[in-house]
Amino acid sequence: MLGDTYGRMFRVTTCGESYGGALLIVVDGVPAGLELCDADVQADLDRRRPGTKAIDSPRQETDQVQVVAGVMDGKTTGAPVGMTIYNVDTQPIHVQQYREVKDLMRPGHAEYTYFVKYGEFADWRGAGRASGRETAGRVAAGAVAKKILAREGVEVVAYVKEAAGIAAREMTFEEIKAGVGKNDINCPDFEAAEKMVRRILEIKEAGDTAGGIVEIIARGVPAGLGEPVFDKLDADIAKALMSIGSVKGVEVGTGFAAAKMRGSEHNDIPYMEDGKVKFRTNNAGGILGGISNGDDIVARMAVKPTATISIDQDTVNMPQMKEVKLAAITRRDATICGRIGPVAEAMMAIVLTDHLMMSRGLDAVAKLDKTWPRAEADGQ
Amino acid sequence: MLGDTYGRMFRVTTCGESYGGALLIVVDGVPAGLELCDADVQADLDRRRPGTKAIDSPRQETDQVQVVAGVMDGKTTGAPVGMTIYNVDTQPIHVQQYREVKDLMRPGHAEYTYFVKYGEFADWRGAGRASGRETAGRVAAGAVAKKILAREGVEVVAYVKEAAGIAAREMTFEEIKAGVGKNDINCPDFEAAEKMVRRILEIKEAGDTAGGIVEIIARGVPAGLGEPVFDKLDADIAKALMSIGSVKGVEVGTGFAAAKMRGSEHNDIPYMEDGKVKFRTNNAGGILGGISNGDDIVARMAVKPTATISIDQDTVNMPQMKEVKLAAITRRDATICGRIGPVAEAMMAIVLTDHLMMSRGLDAVAKLDKTWPRAEADGQ
Amino acid sequence: MLGDTYGRMFRVTTCGESYGGALLIVVDGVPAGLELCDADVQADLDRRRPGTKAIDSPRQETDQVQVVAGVMDGKTTGAPVGMTIYNVDTQPIHVQQYREVKDLMRPGHAEYTYFVKYGEFADWRGAGRASGRETAGRVAAGAVAKKILAREGVEVVAYVKEAAGIAAREMTFEEIKAGVGKNDINCPDFEAAEKMVRRILEIKEAGDTAGGIVEIIARGVPAGLGEPVFDKLDADIAKALMSIGSVKGVEVGTGFAAAKMRGSEHNDIPYMEDGKVKFRTNNAGGILGGISNGDDIVARMAVKPTATISIDQDTVNMPQMKEVKLAAITRRDATICGRIGPVAEAMMAIVLTDHLMMSRGLDAVAKLDKTWPRAEADGQ
Amino acid sequence: MLGDTYGRMFRVTTCGESYGGALLIVVDGVPAGLELCDADVQADLDRRRPGTKAIDSPRQETDQVQVVAGVMDGKTTGAPVGMTIYNVDTQPIHVQQYREVKDLMRPGHAEYTYFVKYGEFADWRGAGRASGRETAGRVAAGAVAKKILAREGVEVVAYVKEAAGIAAREMTFEEIKAGVGKNDINCPDFEAAEKMVRRILEIKEAGDTAGGIVEIIARGVPAGLGEPVFDKLDADIAKALMSIGSVKGVEVGTGFAAAKMRGSEHNDIPYMEDGKVKFRTNNAGGILGGISNGDDIVARMAVKPTATISIDQDTVNMPQMKEVKLAAITRRDATICGRIGPVAEAMMAIVLTDHLMMSRGLDAVAKLDKTWPRAEADGQ
Repeated sequence: MLGDTYGRMFRVTTCGESYGGALLIVVDGVPAGLELCDADVQADLDRRRPGTKAIDSPRQETDQVQVVAGVMDGKTTGAPVGMTIYNVDTQPIHVQQYREVKDLMRPGHAEYTYFVKYGEFADWRGAGRASGRETAGRVAAGAVAKKILAREGVEVVAYVKEAAGIAAREMTFEEIKAGVGKNDINCPDFEAAEKMVRRILEIKEAGDTAGGIVEIIARGVPAGLGEPVFDKLDADIAKALMSIGSVKGVEVGTGFAAAKMRGSEHNDIPYMEDGKVKFRTNNAGGILGGISNGDDIVARMAVKPTATISIDQDTVNMPQMKEVKLAAITRRDATICGRIGPVAEAMMAIVLTDHLMMSRGLDAVAKLDKTWPRAEADGQ
Repeated sequence: MLGDTYGRMFRVTTCGESYGGALLIVVDGVPAGLELCDADVQADLDRRRPGTKAIDSPRQETDQVQVVAGVMDGKTTGAPVGMTIYNVDTQPIHVQQYREVKDLMRPGHAEYTYFVKYGEFADWRGAGRASGRETAGRVAAGAVAKKILAREGVEVVAYVKEAAGIAAREMTFEEIKAGVGKNDINCPDFEAAEKMVRRILEIKEAGDTAGGIVEIIARGVPAGLGEPVFDKLDADIAKALMSIGSVKGVEVGTGFAAAKMRGSEHNDIPYMEDGKVKFRTNNAGGILGGISNGDDIVARMAVKPTATISIDQDTVNMPQMKEVKLAAITRRDATICGRIGPVAEAMMAIVLTDHLMMSRGLDAVAKLDKTWPRAEADGQ
Repeated sequence: MLGDTYGRMFRVTTCGESYGGALLIVVDGVPAGLELCDADVQADLDRRRPGTKAIDSPRQETDQVQVVAGVMDGKTTGAPVGMTIYNVDTQPIHVQQYREVKDLMRPGHAEYTYFVKYGEFADWRGAGRASGRETAGRVAAGAVAKKILAREGVEVVAYVKEAAGIAAREMTFEEIKAGVGKNDINCPDFEAAEKMVRRILEIKEAGDTAGGIVEIIARGVPAGLGEPVFDKLDADIAKALMSIGSVKGVEVGTGFAAAKMRGSEHNDIPYMEDGKVKFRTNNAGGILGGISNGDDIVARMAVKPTATISIDQDTVNMPQMKEVKLAAITRRDATICGRIGPVAEAMMAIVLTDHLMMSRGLDAVAKLDKTWPRAEADGQ
Repeated sequence: MLGDTYGRMFRVTTCGESYGGALLIVVDGVPAGLELCDADVQADLDRRRPGTKAIDSPRQETDQVQVVAGVMDGKTTGAPVGMTIYNVDTQPIHVQQYREVKDLMRPGHAEYTYFVKYGEFADWRGAGRASGRETAGRVAAGAVAKKILAREGVEVVAYVKEAAGIAAREMTFEEIKAGVGKNDINCPDFEAAEKMVRRILEIKEAGDTAGGIVEIIARGVPAGLGEPVFDKLDADIAKALMSIGSVKGVEVGTGFAAAKMRGSEHNDIPYMEDGKVKFRTNNAGGILGGISNGDDIVARMAVKPTATISIDQDTVNMPQMKEVKLAAITRRDATICGRIGPVAEAMMAIVLTDHLMMSRGLDAVAKLDKTWPRAEADGQ
């Protein structure tokens, strides 16, 4: 396995499995002088935490984070920030459940490909490293990124735009921001949210699971971030979001709808306002030629219905290479849409911070109490 | 600019602009002993070349490639493969056209963000590095990747699934393969293709442009490619495809349709056939937990309508920061859907080769006609 | 700060400061199926540990390591290995000592450059991240690398070849191996070792410090490791060793002595023995053209005398920018030569493992008890 | 092969062999607005060029460089700079000479390790990619780096400090600068230079070759460059210099001499002058804790005697695995010390530029006509 580090100038490394001892998170490239304490990181982790809502997995994890490196007297020192999250709900009884079915492929899950890649040594305890549990590490790192971005006036929010086939209405950024995290499905359209939860509970009742679409908006991103040709900002966003388990698609701006539009309709027309360049529409989703244009970055990701269902399924015993039945599994999320928001925000924040550091430099961002000179010519 | 290199163990670096002297392509990590000549690369370049069809840009480029490094006696040596493509259709008269409007933002184009990032020094000649011309470099590198993959029994094809709102019918892999590159819009459903071209010509007539959806299929990919957590195979595919200019969305397997499905419906049920694991469906698009499962890799990308249109548009003069009119531009593609196939194939092939090298190692793949493990001659 | 990750296919990330909460170590790219427990790592850490000998710093650290991720049932799973080492000797009284002089540059130390780079936020507690304490993280990661190399028959040893001006005699690899770690100065020539320690204690008595030369030998390295042009094996070794604090020079094979030799004298003449290529001499130090030739890899590094001395020194107060006196400091190492061996071994082992993985591939090394090529179970 | 790209934020990629078609050089991360023309690059290439002096190889290469990408109207555009150098002295008669001995290992050369790694496919024409010819690519890229550094007031010079056992006297930076490139051996101590050349010609006469020591000094480097822990500035310099063919050792500041010094002697004592921090000595070689301290960066590298000699040698036929005689070779350098200076300067310049970009950011350096704000607190 070699994909546990993300970023070039803001670099996140995580490890830890669903039922291992602990998750460790190292965040390198953090400027010195940033206020950072456990509570800053805990807030986002609590939004991701399972076990608190009817539609979520019943697993009880406290997800208590501790910053153990890179901070002195409440401020970052320039050294990498190190964090730990110890697993607590790892009782032998739960591990035992997994041991019983460890040789069976759970359809839609990563067991098979891990078995091919790592053989019998792959961690089978609750999907091991392939578990959604690793996203706690992303959220912790993302909290650090968000603090850096906040100083630049950049806000990142993610919310459920559609779940179990029910769509939220169009909302302003302010409405979205105000409503994020306010209900079990993380949908700021409260009316739609109610319907979504009701539908998901019905689906859960039937032993099944649901998917949805999550939108992520970053406001206040300075123009000029992104590196053509291969490291375009939208390319990096696509990778970062697609790397979240269960995500099957990513789009920016108009996304797939662009396929049916005409150029005259799709082009965002610029105009001047208060001496600044603005755009009449934002079909681009804030990115032109792979570089941010100063408008809101808008991305969406498609979340598949959770693979673990409470219905018997045909499958194969992997080492024996023979067909068997897999019994219904009850310890599961009916959908992960309600909990995936902080993960999506984290990945967006990490990508933006990485590009910010590339553009501005480690030292430019490093000494935060210094005035940060932005040339006027950047259109901001 | 710092995004001109892609890959970790198979590494592609390109440079060159629309109206610069030449495109240079360096491909590192190519195993020794691979047969490679100019013609191998030229074939794919010819499929991407403009100026040959009614719906394409009239620009006349020969796109003649020359392999100048890394090959001896018709075979790769293990050293990086170096290739050149000299620009020929760069007459002053064309450059002059661009000079006249160099300060005006073309809506939907990268001029504005390049201006923010690089100031007045950004290459304005036909969009410079932001031009689709850079994709010739991708195609050349992709041709090398395809040759490596071919030895492993991997085939990659890309075709237009939808253009200007007209969708192709469902087809088998064999039908698709047989029909790729056979018409101006690169759609193997010939009936649909005819309608697409007709519709696009109407749109072109109206001075406008069209978009579409391109599907990429890789058959024969061995199970086990992809590195969790951040470097999942689908994450890398998403980045690679999204990095192509004009692409606004990427999906794998069911993609955005997954959002409306249930787990019991989405899970691909495995079974045994001839002693091998197979899946009854391929909703996963050949990737589970970020690792290939041996089934076809299936991805789609949304292509926006080309930004350059033959209709007057409001815009701004960038250095002057004032609103102006931009006149219709005639040297343009009515859609790039018909030409983008080889580029999409190239990116998919590059991603797969990179992961193949990571899994198998530079030396494992290196001595292609040697038995692995190592020949005794290595003194060990 | 952005240099806390090393490696491409075997990737080590560390964090933690001298007086922070803990050191965290993440090792990515570890093959599945490797036996690994806390004790395996502890052994090397104990050899590096301060506070046990007269010539070392009196700091009392237990350096207790815990493997918290990447291992299940005593074997690695393919997921990144995560380890923690909590600091224990961080009493306020010691921290207070540092606080008093935090604004003063300690000559020969990194305080000034950290102050320039990170401002007042740089961690001043015992040099923070610039402390030799971070090398515990390297040693922990190196222990994992050594276990991988051991399976390939590769051994790595480092010993003191010269200290405080006293040189050890020439020894065979077997003599060296037998004598490593057997005395306070880690010199397998016991007679020389005694003289070294005596001389160093005299120097210590005088409030001063000593340096030396450490030699690192890797035996059993397969021919073929190293990637020309920029990533030559010797180039990577040079970087890895020079990255250790206090190291001022690195040489391979004849090293600086080569400058005075003639070609006819320096060339290692090959011959055949038992059907294998051997060399009559090893002036190359086991590397030709940046690639291992199967002979012993031999490198040496120059270690400067420890900067912290027990003698008053002129210096400057950094934020005040004025000249002041720095009083003698007593909590210090008289030399780090005796403790640096495991660190040098670790870096050599990490470099070799990284190149091994590049050459052989993550999967080739991954399933350690499986026959390569792949088991049929992968569905291919 | 996978080591043909160097750098993170200033990235150099090269390809090309001794007797291939051409060398290609791509330099990514070049700020926009830098004046750059062929002649800027040619000057350094001419200093490296063979065939002009009695002690060099008689090979006649014009080393004519052409900038074909990344420059418009004489200034860089922010896009990667692409350059070509076509090989001209590649007549079949010379290639034929190599073909005759292609299976024989030349002692001290890379043929054997290339054969192990790439098999019979390795380019045997004049050592192929392992030839010193690849350093022309480094020099071309280095010329671009030097232009960036020059704007920052950074100068880099390399000269021969010792050759064939004859040492130059100590000189001031001004003396060195004035004398660089002024004689065949590139030694600014003209008296010593004369002796060196005479001695080398004697050695050449005897069919043998000589080595030496090259010192590289970078003056004007701002304090604060370098990334602890693994990417220290001295670690990167060590790698960059050691990656040059024939280099067997690298040291910074006192280097190996530090091993015999005491702390009180080695520590550079700081003092204030004109409101700036200065050091009374420069034993550190301008780097503390891996970060530049504002003083001159001083490094030295040991160059081994050229492996190709005009004396018969015992060797082995590689594919046949049997002992044979290798006849004297006449097309060779008596020493490469006189020509390696520009290569060493290039590598130092590339490392410094890479770190400069990391510290300052792509955009900070990008728009060169903008004032570049350096905070006063950085001690400069």
